[in-house]
Amino acid sequence: MSELALTTGRWPGLLVRYRDRLPSLPPDAQPVTLHEGMTPLIRAERIEQALGGDVELYVKFEGLNPTGSFKDRGMTMAVTLAKYRGAKAVICASTGNTSASAAAYAARAGLRCIVVLPKGKIALGKLSQAFIYGAEVVEIDGNFDQALEIVRQLGETGAVAVVNSINPDRIEGQKTIAFEIHEQLGRLPTHHALPVGNAGNITAHWRGYREVAALTGEGLPVMLGFQAEGAAPLVLGHPVDHPETIATAIRIGRPASWDGAIEARDDSGGAIEAVSDWEIFAAQRRLAREAGIFCEPASAAPIAGLLKRAARSPLPPGSVVVATVTGNGLKDPDTAALGAELKPAIPALLGPIRDRLGL
Amino acid sequence: MSELALTTGRWPGLLVRYRDRLPSLPPDAQPVTLHEGMTPLIRAERIEQALGGDVELYVKFEGLNPTGSFKDRGMTMAVTLAKYRGAKAVICASTGNTSASAAAYAARAGLRCIVVLPKGKIALGKLSQAFIYGAEVVEIDGNFDQALEIVRQLGETGAVAVVNSINPDRIEGQKTIAFEIHEQLGRLPTHHALPVGNAGNITAHWRGYREVAALTGEGLPVMLGFQAEGAAPLVLGHPVDHPETIATAIRIGRPASWDGAIEARDDSGGAIEAVSDWEIFAAQRRLAREAGIFCEPASAAPIAGLLKRAARSPLPPGSVVVATVTGNGLKDPDTAALGAELKPAIPALLGPIRDRLGL
Repeated sequence: MSELALTTGRWPGLLVRYRDRLPSLPPDAQPVTLHEGMTPLIRAERIEQALGGDVELYVKFEGLNPTGSFKDRGMTMAVTLAKYRGAKAVICASTGNTSASAAAYAARAGLRCIVVLPKGKIALGKLSQAFIYGAEVVEIDGNFDQALEIVRQLGETGAVAVVNSINPDRIEGQKTIAFEIHEQLGRLPTHHALPVGNAGNITAHWRGYREVAALTGEGLPVMLGFQAEGAAPLVLGHPVDHPETIATAIRIGRPASWDGAIEARDDSGGAIEAVSDWEIFAAQRRLAREAGIFCEPASAAPIAGLLKRAARSPLPPGSVVVATVTGNGLKDPDTAALGAELKPAIPALLGPIRDRLGL
Repeated sequence: MSELALTTGRWPGLLVRYRDRLPSLPPDAQPVTLHEGMTPLIRAERIEQALGGDVELYVKFEGLNPTGSFKDRGMTMAVTLAKYRGAKAVICASTGNTSASAAAYAARAGLRCIVVLPKGKIALGKLSQAFIYGAEVVEIDGNFDQALEIVRQLGETGAVAVVNSINPDRIEGQKTIAFEIHEQLGRLPTHHALPVGNAGNITAHWRGYREVAALTGEGLPVMLGFQAEGAAPLVLGHPVDHPETIATAIRIGRPASWDGAIEARDDSGGAIEAVSDWEIFAAQRRLAREAGIFCEPASAAPIAGLLKRAARSPLPPGSVVVATVTGNGLKDPDTAALGAELKPAIPALLGPIRDRLGL
């Protein structure tokens, strides 16, 4: 990667940019890329005022990845390696961001993408991305765990490559977010807040931060994970059988990366806490109205959590906080319009409109 | 802008990056930015094969701007200047991408955003972005032209800044797309294809390309604009009173930048042609399934148009074609899921699933 190419804005995607820090990527593997990554790090001045004096808050807006979520970081890695190893198809059990990302990268690679789902649980609209990218969707008589089990069994036959988060290439690709934050900030943050569902992302962030710190000798951030109250197994310390929350992307009762989340929390001196659906909803609106960033509900959990913690005890002066906002609000337009209503129409005349608007 | 900052990926947004090429931006104006721009330029290898031998096709994916469309380029400029000039509110008459972008940048700037609409014409869902960013939506008894007229009158009172495309700052900001394409490609393309609705974007592209060519002495691209058959005033040579197309973002019968579009077409030796809704729909799917890019229907018009032209006469060998894909497909999920259907569920057993999938 020449310096010229970077200065002229040719962002080549994660695998090219960070190839030397992804040892599991063979030198002759051809990246399957949609130029994911290097998402904006946007300062949220108006919200940071609520966190304490002399605190900086930056939002890493992962919703601007090619399929609208952070999943693209792991998927470019997983699909590149699947293709490199000779797979003709990738498969996952997912109703949301994972299936969208898998379908897009498979399309790019010229591979089949198969999505296995429990029967009758999914509205077609939620699958619009998977459909348009050409994924084959199969419904089974069974629950989500059975869908995942079948996917695992199919993977073992060698016929398909599993790209669910049990695939370790996913977390390896996702760790690159820490590299970017370090480059964009010019330092490591003091605190990092993010939503925690399946816990792969907090695991990946922590891995990436440790790799940066090992290179630069800087101090590691305190990791602050936030779950929804109705789906908070890591807060409770035990799995949740029927998780419930409006934040569908983190509606998970048995996190696949449980140990990774606990390690990130404990090694960083951090915490994993719960926020209510109402706090999530309010934080989603606040992020849109005070920072101009529209995210899906789950992504607002870290903002909700930071505000909740700060009300209890403000962050120390000099704190530099990064919050990962994992998915684009356009993925869930119905939640966005909740509560919106229009007043009765008025005549198309200057006077009444000025009156209505107080102008 | 230091070279270091760029090499480390701190993309600062358009106004900082291209300040020296935006003379209407006063040196002391503080940019209102969401780090818009430098959207990926993604090669579409599988589609370019259909355009002729030895042709390169690149998609400039503007759907990855902060609010999901190219409008953010003009809006960062318009809202920055509105705030600089002391405005307390911005206003527009728009049902779609313009209102979303205006609302986000106004939120970022701490300004009010007012959206004026004809009564009863708009589903709340289409306005989800405007609502979540906190815009005030006012319905009037009247049609879209009357809404725009009231907006114009309110602007003349000095109480609000109009950010519809009659605001010349919009096109000035939008021209930066040409600068980026030149940097990303390392040259000017030979052909540029894009959707044409209100025609501000083709006008802005052409202005930007001419500015690049004046600096570098390179040859200018041939500009190829595509309208929807039911909303093709520039193809017909006269306004269309009741435009109709599934491509709502270009459903416009009286383009505001008519003259700019004709100038771009004629000065570049280009063309403005029509494509059918069916061709648009098919191209949207093809772009998703062969390139991994999910765009709103209007954005697929240039892909449809390029394929239609190539069927008639392939592009010359050596052509380097860029197509602007203006908006994110997540803005219009209903169109994406059209035609999707699920087969009956099958037992959660390896055998039946392998049979179904032919694995």
